[in-house]
Amino acid sequence: MAPQLDPFFQKVDELKQPFIERLREAVAIQSVSAQAESRPDVVKMGHWVADQLKTLGAEVELRELGKEPGREHLDLPPVVLARYGSDPKKRTILVYGHYDVQPAEKEDGWATEPFDLTVDEQGRMFGRGSTDDKGPVLGWINIIDAHKQAGVEFPVNLLCCFEGMEEFGSLGLEEFVKAEGPKYFKDTDAVCISDNYWLGTEKPCLTYGLRGCNYYSLTISGPGQDLHSGVFGGTAHEPMTDLVTLLAKLVDCQGNILIPGIKELIAPVTDDEQGLYDAITYSMDDFHISLGSETSIMPTKEGTLMRRWRFPSLSIHGVEGAYSAPGCKTVIPAKVLGKFSIRTVPNMQSEDVTRLVTEFINAEAAKLQTKNKIEVALMHDGKCIPITLTFEEATGKNVLLLPMGSSTDAPHSINEKLDTRNYIEGTKLLGAYLHYVAEEPLN
Amino acid sequence: MAPQLDPFFQKVDELKQPFIERLREAVAIQSVSAQAESRPDVVKMGHWVADQLKTLGAEVELRELGKEPGREHLDLPPVVLARYGSDPKKRTILVYGHYDVQPAEKEDGWATEPFDLTVDEQGRMFGRGSTDDKGPVLGWINIIDAHKQAGVEFPVNLLCCFEGMEEFGSLGLEEFVKAEGPKYFKDTDAVCISDNYWLGTEKPCLTYGLRGCNYYSLTISGPGQDLHSGVFGGTAHEPMTDLVTLLAKLVDCQGNILIPGIKELIAPVTDDEQGLYDAITYSMDDFHISLGSETSIMPTKEGTLMRRWRFPSLSIHGVEGAYSAPGCKTVIPAKVLGKFSIRTVPNMQSEDVTRLVTEFINAEAAKLQTKNKIEVALMHDGKCIPITLTFEEATGKNVLLLPMGSSTDAPHSINEKLDTRNYIEGTKLLGAYLHYVAEEPLN
Repeated sequence: MAPQLDPFFQKVDELKQPFIERLREAVAIQSVSAQAESRPDVVKMGHWVADQLKTLGAEVELRELGKEPGREHLDLPPVVLARYGSDPKKRTILVYGHYDVQPAEKEDGWATEPFDLTVDEQGRMFGRGSTDDKGPVLGWINIIDAHKQAGVEFPVNLLCCFEGMEEFGSLGLEEFVKAEGPKYFKDTDAVCISDNYWLGTEKPCLTYGLRGCNYYSLTISGPGQDLHSGVFGGTAHEPMTDLVTLLAKLVDCQGNILIPGIKELIAPVTDDEQGLYDAITYSMDDFHISLGSETSIMPTKEGTLMRRWRFPSLSIHGVEGAYSAPGCKTVIPAKVLGKFSIRTVPNMQSEDVTRLVTEFINAEAAKLQTKNKIEVALMHDGKCIPITLTFEEATGKNVLLLPMGSSTDAPHSINEKLDTRNYIEGTKLLGAYLHYVAEEPLN
Repeated sequence: MAPQLDPFFQKVDELKQPFIERLREAVAIQSVSAQAESRPDVVKMGHWVADQLKTLGAEVELRELGKEPGREHLDLPPVVLARYGSDPKKRTILVYGHYDVQPAEKEDGWATEPFDLTVDEQGRMFGRGSTDDKGPVLGWINIIDAHKQAGVEFPVNLLCCFEGMEEFGSLGLEEFVKAEGPKYFKDTDAVCISDNYWLGTEKPCLTYGLRGCNYYSLTISGPGQDLHSGVFGGTAHEPMTDLVTLLAKLVDCQGNILIPGIKELIAPVTDDEQGLYDAITYSMDDFHISLGSETSIMPTKEGTLMRRWRFPSLSIHGVEGAYSAPGCKTVIPAKVLGKFSIRTVPNMQSEDVTRLVTEFINAEAAKLQTKNKIEVALMHDGKCIPITLTFEEATGKNVLLLPMGSSTDAPHSINEKLDTRNYIEGTKLLGAYLHYVAEEPLN
């Protein structure tokens, strides 16, 4: 039987402005997990989320995860655990989200201040974290708020697990979730995560799989300090030359990974699977709109979706240590750190990928006959939105990925946004999910 | 007849501390010409230099050079012209220097604050611009100061031409110097420039040639905005992949330029020239000390010096627009700008080099079959310390390059320094040069 959702929906509509203000407050806290200097703001953001939940009547705990591996002077931000309701007659739904965000600087090319939520005439709410993942996290909080204010009984017992390190490999969370599987999460009947995006802009979607991510650094060092190219050019092995030479061997301009052995790890495409793509509502026009250009590699929708979903990819993200500011600097950088990552798919195991990457780079580095020191290192890995499979394993229950944002939201990019429509209707959608899952017949 | 220099030398020794304080004051002004936001400090530095000269009794003019080509919202910093003495019986010596500096940030890896002159126990004075070129510019000012305070007659009429754009291609200066050749500079008997370095650390040197510099940008753009690699990896042509692929084709890891036609532009090595290198006081140990490592390309002193002096080189300086901060960001940058430069030697003409670079990159870009937009552009060029030959042409007189700093000074790098010994003895050397050139018989 379909639940009676009208009073809840109506209250969400009424609370549109307060909900936007709540998001504005959240976006203003610069909780960038990758940057050491922002760590106090990440912690502040965790406390802010906890306070929101407490005010609404949830039982909240802030759980510490210890020091950050590799940057031991930093404490990891706390996991916010919350329970709203403990009625044994109701189902218990565990929701996960993250309150940290990707780095953002106005100078990167943002049209607005990245940490100042700016709503335009079309209702687009620009700001770092608006869609990834503060909007969806607040969606869950807004649902509690709207039920209370509408006087509608909450349909489930809600467990929240909100972390602050998702954008830096969810450090410490895997062990934590595994440990809490039989403890804090033991009553869980199902898990729902809202930390991804619709395929397009009009049609909501359910996600039942995500590519993983193995993130690598390739560090090349030689001279004792940066050098003047007028004095030293031509006489010393230049780390930057070695770096671009090696990076260019990893992937070609059609996006094909050139590292031997990677292809062999991929689960073969079956005929059944091949037949699935044709029916999907999607077009190359949709793709080009979300891309903001027509620089697609594959000519067809099917090819593009398969590249996106079921094949690995390798992206080069940037270089640390070289000259990156505007203007001309005639420097030979002494130490450069190239960053690239591989999106992984079944059946690619992280260890196998890292072994192949390392062997290949070491073999190619030897061919360069450079005296510079070359080191490749795995910075972090994860099977998908890093924690999805861990929740499945720890609870033994189904994990649903139910996105709020649309394909045009530009998470991780400049001008990240969440449409007001997606925020408000998405809050209704997540709330409706709780009502439906409460009534769903047991298998 | 050797001039009587003792009272001048003695006064320079006495004034060591005030001279260091003068340099400290100069280094504190962040006159970075490459960065638009620092332009007011560059202008401030020009006025500071002018004031120093005025206080010592020189006639000073600040000459405006108009707007900066390509960044027309910026005024170019003024050229400081000064005349100290106008005795028709004395020779007139024109000295050139620059009061702008390369960019520097503590985070680049400086051991000290780059704009806060820090003198260590060995007398090394660390600070951006200490050796390049504020120290030598102040050398000329210190000489006037020491002569006045010692009551020693100044041996020549001194003309100064100090610019504020040397580290960004000496924009506007070439035309200015040419125009002033028959005007402000018309009495010039010889030109002296102190804006380079000793070959080693113990033996001063004279420089009679310098490699030029053609600085290029390689801009690659595609997507409308930065992309999330989880969503877009594999489906769109990535500008960063195209960039590293093209950069890797320009130069190999042994420093050989791979652009066809460049080699053919180089003046052939004669037997006479080949014979010159053996007698030069220099060793691979000297080279490794200044390099701070043993990552030399050539096994011999002769090969290293020829690579340094008489062959071109290509250095890759960095990438603008990619992720350059610490940490992991899973971004596909939408637009990246790679920067590289070629050090040029006789007989390489700038236009020929640019034509070869452009043709080669365009041909290689076409082979990539990428849909991204690829543009190569000359950011600036110059025949050597950009203005040396222009002074020779404009005045019709000899130009001497008389360095103050040593091979270990790390100009353009982190921890740039000038040794107190080089600053003080170098001031004496430049002063002695003026005395000797005053008495040199005419040809």
